[in-house]
Amino acid sequence: MHNASWTLLAGMAMLLSFGAQAADARDAGHLAFTAVDPFIGTGGEGHTFPGATVPFGMVQLSPDTRIQARKDAYGWAAGYRYSDSTIVGFSHTHFSGTGHSDLGDVLLMPVAGEAKIERGDPDVPGSGYTSRFSHASERAEPGYYAVTLDDAGVRAELTASARVGVHRYAFAPGKPAHVLLDLRTSMYDYPGKVLWSRIRVRADGTVTGFRETRGWAPGRQLYFAMRFSQPLVGHALHNTETDIAYKGFPPPGEKDPTRRAQIEGRQLVASFDFGTGLRAPLIAKVSISSVDEAGAIANLDADMPGWDFDGVRTAAKAQWAQALGVADIDAPEPMRKAFFTALYHTLQAPSLFMDSDGRYRGPDNAVHQAKGWTNYSTFSLWDTYRALHPLLTIVQPEQRNNDIVQSLLAARRESPYGVLPVWAFHGQETWCMIGYHAVPVIADAYMKGIRGYDANEALDAMVASANYGPYDGIAQYRELGYVPIDEEGEAASKTLEYAYDDWTIAQVAKSMGRKDIAAEFGKRAANWKHAFDAETGFMRARKRDGSFRVPFDPDASGYGTDYTEGNAWQYSWYVPQDVAGLAAAHGGTDKLLKRLDDVFDAKVDPKVFAHMEDITGLIGWYAHGNEPSHHVAYLYSHAGQPWRTQARLKQVMDTQYKPTPDGLAGNDDLGQMSAWFVFTSLGFYPVAPGSNEYILGRPFVRRASLNLPNGKRFTVLADGLDDGHTYVDSVMLDGKPLDRAFITHQELMAGGELRFKMQAAPNKEWPGNGAKSPYSMSNE
Amino acid sequence: MHNASWTLLAGMAMLLSFGAQAADARDAGHLAFTAVDPFIGTGGEGHTFPGATVPFGMVQLSPDTRIQARKDAYGWAAGYRYSDSTIVGFSHTHFSGTGHSDLGDVLLMPVAGEAKIERGDPDVPGSGYTSRFSHASERAEPGYYAVTLDDAGVRAELTASARVGVHRYAFAPGKPAHVLLDLRTSMYDYPGKVLWSRIRVRADGTVTGFRETRGWAPGRQLYFAMRFSQPLVGHALHNTETDIAYKGFPPPGEKDPTRRAQIEGRQLVASFDFGTGLRAPLIAKVSISSVDEAGAIANLDADMPGWDFDGVRTAAKAQWAQALGVADIDAPEPMRKAFFTALYHTLQAPSLFMDSDGRYRGPDNAVHQAKGWTNYSTFSLWDTYRALHPLLTIVQPEQRNNDIVQSLLAARRESPYGVLPVWAFHGQETWCMIGYHAVPVIADAYMKGIRGYDANEALDAMVASANYGPYDGIAQYRELGYVPIDEEGEAASKTLEYAYDDWTIAQVAKSMGRKDIAAEFGKRAANWKHAFDAETGFMRARKRDGSFRVPFDPDASGYGTDYTEGNAWQYSWYVPQDVAGLAAAHGGTDKLLKRLDDVFDAKVDPKVFAHMEDITGLIGWYAHGNEPSHHVAYLYSHAGQPWRTQARLKQVMDTQYKPTPDGLAGNDDLGQMSAWFVFTSLGFYPVAPGSNEYILGRPFVRRASLNLPNGKRFTVLADGLDDGHTYVDSVMLDGKPLDRAFITHQELMAGGELRFKMQAAPNKEWPGNGAKSPYSMSNE
Repeated sequence: MHNASWTLLAGMAMLLSFGAQAADARDAGHLAFTAVDPFIGTGGEGHTFPGATVPFGMVQLSPDTRIQARKDAYGWAAGYRYSDSTIVGFSHTHFSGTGHSDLGDVLLMPVAGEAKIERGDPDVPGSGYTSRFSHASERAEPGYYAVTLDDAGVRAELTASARVGVHRYAFAPGKPAHVLLDLRTSMYDYPGKVLWSRIRVRADGTVTGFRETRGWAPGRQLYFAMRFSQPLVGHALHNTETDIAYKGFPPPGEKDPTRRAQIEGRQLVASFDFGTGLRAPLIAKVSISSVDEAGAIANLDADMPGWDFDGVRTAAKAQWAQALGVADIDAPEPMRKAFFTALYHTLQAPSLFMDSDGRYRGPDNAVHQAKGWTNYSTFSLWDTYRALHPLLTIVQPEQRNNDIVQSLLAARRESPYGVLPVWAFHGQETWCMIGYHAVPVIADAYMKGIRGYDANEALDAMVASANYGPYDGIAQYRELGYVPIDEEGEAASKTLEYAYDDWTIAQVAKSMGRKDIAAEFGKRAANWKHAFDAETGFMRARKRDGSFRVPFDPDASGYGTDYTEGNAWQYSWYVPQDVAGLAAAHGGTDKLLKRLDDVFDAKVDPKVFAHMEDITGLIGWYAHGNEPSHHVAYLYSHAGQPWRTQARLKQVMDTQYKPTPDGLAGNDDLGQMSAWFVFTSLGFYPVAPGSNEYILGRPFVRRASLNLPNGKRFTVLADGLDDGHTYVDSVMLDGKPLDRAFITHQELMAGGELRFKMQAAPNKEWPGNGAKSPYSMSNE
Repeated sequence: MHNASWTLLAGMAMLLSFGAQAADARDAGHLAFTAVDPFIGTGGEGHTFPGATVPFGMVQLSPDTRIQARKDAYGWAAGYRYSDSTIVGFSHTHFSGTGHSDLGDVLLMPVAGEAKIERGDPDVPGSGYTSRFSHASERAEPGYYAVTLDDAGVRAELTASARVGVHRYAFAPGKPAHVLLDLRTSMYDYPGKVLWSRIRVRADGTVTGFRETRGWAPGRQLYFAMRFSQPLVGHALHNTETDIAYKGFPPPGEKDPTRRAQIEGRQLVASFDFGTGLRAPLIAKVSISSVDEAGAIANLDADMPGWDFDGVRTAAKAQWAQALGVADIDAPEPMRKAFFTALYHTLQAPSLFMDSDGRYRGPDNAVHQAKGWTNYSTFSLWDTYRALHPLLTIVQPEQRNNDIVQSLLAARRESPYGVLPVWAFHGQETWCMIGYHAVPVIADAYMKGIRGYDANEALDAMVASANYGPYDGIAQYRELGYVPIDEEGEAASKTLEYAYDDWTIAQVAKSMGRKDIAAEFGKRAANWKHAFDAETGFMRARKRDGSFRVPFDPDASGYGTDYTEGNAWQYSWYVPQDVAGLAAAHGGTDKLLKRLDDVFDAKVDPKVFAHMEDITGLIGWYAHGNEPSHHVAYLYSHAGQPWRTQARLKQVMDTQYKPTPDGLAGNDDLGQMSAWFVFTSLGFYPVAPGSNEYILGRPFVRRASLNLPNGKRFTVLADGLDDGHTYVDSVMLDGKPLDRAFITHQELMAGGELRFKMQAAPNKEWPGNGAKSPYSMSNE
């Protein structure tokens, strides 16, 4: 659908059926639910998965089409690729849209007939338990997935509660029914990844176990518990590792895998056997826990005491309808599908990471107890602080946002380093990417009045994270005002992002009356200036002696350059906290905007980033598939020329998103790509979280009603919107003309109506010369 | 001292100084304490360690002289060998006297000067941090050890509380003082043993961490916490593993080991630096926990809030004096030394395995909470059910014995297999050796009236362990009445030991009025008969078809034979529950005793067991260095000819024990060898635990007073004992002639006086024809 347009699609789809406004949020939720297509993003660059989860669920149960070794892992970060025609099994944890990969825990595979214990070569049918399938047999909706496994002879359905994945397997009749449990596999597979693992068959038929992996997160422990709806006829526990330096003494049943009550090792696979007499589909329910096996059992009992697969599915559907019902839009079906799927993808992380009794494993790999709040993990913060977390402050209840802040603060208390999470999942820190972007997440929440936590502790945590010398050149940054490239890689990106994060600390400190901190970090917020090279107009990395590193190539990207996942063209606009200052540095707004045009209009060889994962979705040098570009199109509006933002947004929306499996131009990154889409569809975007301002773009839907969790409704209308009328003539807020290109969070949450009048030609006069542009207000 | 005798030694030592009876138990304790020589057993075959521990302490802190790889590990099972001249460091966990090896956790090494992070080649001084030392600089007493590390330039002292090892290091002045922490080493070292580990330097200077090892026990987790009495000047955390498949993203400080707050990996070593300015010895206190780092910190705080090394040492001394003060003996100094060191060695295991808050890790590798009892682990049950546990029922308070039973029952509740421990340490089951010998430990306690636990649960646990089919041929044993050698190795030994264990279940069931169980297991107690080959007079293994396996060589031993760590000569007497029956099977007592003489008097090439570890201490075929022989010398007495037991005991005592480092003829096996010595010195031995009878031998001390924990005193006197008067003429119990060659536990615990009249010649008339021999009474 590249070079198409969202409004043009209106002509290809039914216009009227969803044109009416939903009667209420429940109605909206149902309409939204049916619009979601979980396959969007499962091909191309999206790295999403089509499986079953509830909003922010701890279990995210999904088919894995291939288990890829390290060198091929990138494309299979979510386990599933739409282009594949085989399924290895169904595992219980997945990332939605990452570039790096891990998880894929507790993989189950049902097999009717002979149960091979190796997964085999997916390209050689019958070489293992991997089975062919066809998309025609698949069905996916939020909280539910189904597929027919052709070689395995099984119709498999999946659903999930918060902590339990539920499988319903209908086996081909007449053949022995097996369920394989493979603890050897995960996303990003390599020899030695599993440090230790265990499978135990308890006397009551409950199967429990754990595995500890050295993957993206080191020493991660995951426990599970599993029960079947039918009695076990038999089982076999295998350790397929043969090169064991010391085996110890054999436990009972060692000579006969079918008599083992437990097995331990690094390469474990089990077969659970149900004979040929199953009269109904087999249900397997599987819980996970970061704490221990008892925690997993308790989670199983708490979430699903019985065997009502359809009840769990219905409950999941209800949760999704409620969460998605926050929005009701009037748009053509493809847009509705894209929009609600994007919204669906923004409601998966940070994910629940706590047992039913409040225990969870922290970044110190120890077990902790949450009292009065809910712990979340999976923080892809370098991505998600930009739009995902700001979106959650709108579409999710205040309690969820408070819990996210509480989770970040708890993680800092439990951190061996005394800092907030950087890129954490399952409680464990990975140190992936750069910055201390938990800071803007907390700052954004605080500035928006989400304050159900100890604010002083929050500020302390932010300051501690910003001042932790051993991390990524912070010691030098504090000393020099920038990160020196001769001492720390990717120094230009780090200086820029630190300066923004610092600005958000200053915002909070000012709000709390902590003047010394506000002054210190207000000063640090200007550190971006140390990266600006007036001669070339690019942000660059300096050495300790103050000189910029040479030679300098603004096209260059890669590990070891001045930048993180980008080049000078992409990173030179990262001053969301002071766009006016950036313009001034460039010699005025016109020069800044000219340089922005150079970015979008450049002729760029698409292969220039072939050596880099993650940099995709090119429009000139603008790379929508990666986060450093996400605010850039809004800078025109920010700098006083909103009609140019409006044009760029159309360009981005038309080329970077499609309501198809390959419809995401870049990794969804736990919802950041999707959050951009949701915001942009609604007509505004949080360029600088912490400012409480959303910069106006233009709506891509004719009407969007936000049924805010606070009970208010905020409606966006785009009068006259169609593919020929894509520019904003004027904007009314609650019936009054809006003479500025932003709205505030307070205005939004108060409910009301934001009415865009669309027209064919740019209106270069709106919002008018008299209006202040938001960056200047933010920095007064 | 082979071919010497204990009474002959009297002439070589001061006779009178310790001849007087201690005024009270406290006095006795002090005298006993000073008699202990922790170096006994550290050479030769004893496998004991000389370091610091309190009775049954969780921390057993001791120098390791070499870290041996798997093939050489046997002799270094306790870390220390007296013949070595180097010390690698001081680690916090050790087995006292095992044949197999593990532990050696959390090894510290102080170094003045350059701190190399590799231990180097012990034969190449200066090649690593290993240091030379000389025995002249060593001092060891219960709870305290000191040595001068010549190359390291450190005077090191060690003491311990229950959960904390305390180090006091005086560094050579003028050189930088370092303490190395090496998590890579353990007894029985091999590549890949450490599955995962972690070292964390907390903001307050506390160092915590853990390691998980795949050793004798699979997946064993051990946590620790460490504090120093002086502030850290610096530290460096190193991972020396280079071949890492996936390293993940670098944590803060990765480039500079001195700035790391934490390190994770499989090969970790840390240096803690104190500069050159230390004005007083450095104290390091280290706690361990099976639960988590917080548990280790709490243990540290609970046991040793301050820095009073001498106070901890004094407290350890007081605990030992109390524990050792249970006995007060009149004997020459070498005998006193040997006796009290043996008693010392019987008071180290089972060892405490529980945090100060009652939490511990069970055999399911999960954390559990003890409520109202204390958890113990390190159960070398195949060894210790014979004499060590029976000794503890006499010399330790009832509560300790109850706690041991509670620990066994808890381990069974937590067992993935639903059975009592077999050979467990640090909560983890190793499945080492054979039998279900937790059963006789519980039975012995129960029969002796130690019943502070749920007796029904105890009987259930015993029955469950005896009936667990997948374990070591139990299914076949239940089916056939014996373990078939064509389906299960070492089948003769298993059949014999199962039958004895079964008899103890019958004893308990009878006592509890559970007639069905008593009948069932009473019948099973006779299963030894299925192993008896009347033709050869040996116990042998049958095949499923009922025939004995051929060819048969009574001299043969080794893995895969009919026997466990022994041959037909050694195993054919293992019917402690029915010596009368055994005699009858042989065709009468005379024939049985003739065969026993054949055992002792055989001419055996000492090299016949060179291929087998553990079989040492030969007298003919009698192998005192291993447990299957331990009851054999007492069978003469049991069968009505006590004078022959008296002679054999002299033979064993004179050749198998010396009060010197190489003074133990076999592995002490967590105190079993020593318990035999203690019992035999006192003049009686528990041939059949569960019978409540001790078979009389002859005392090896002139007087022994047992200050029983119940407040009573039981005194053994050996009138006329000297090296020329080693036979018993007659015995008086509480002033009345004793016409039987045994006493009961009840008689012992009631206090009183057991007076042997010794003479030069055997008295073949005592106890007289009219006396019943105990086996017949036991089996009425």
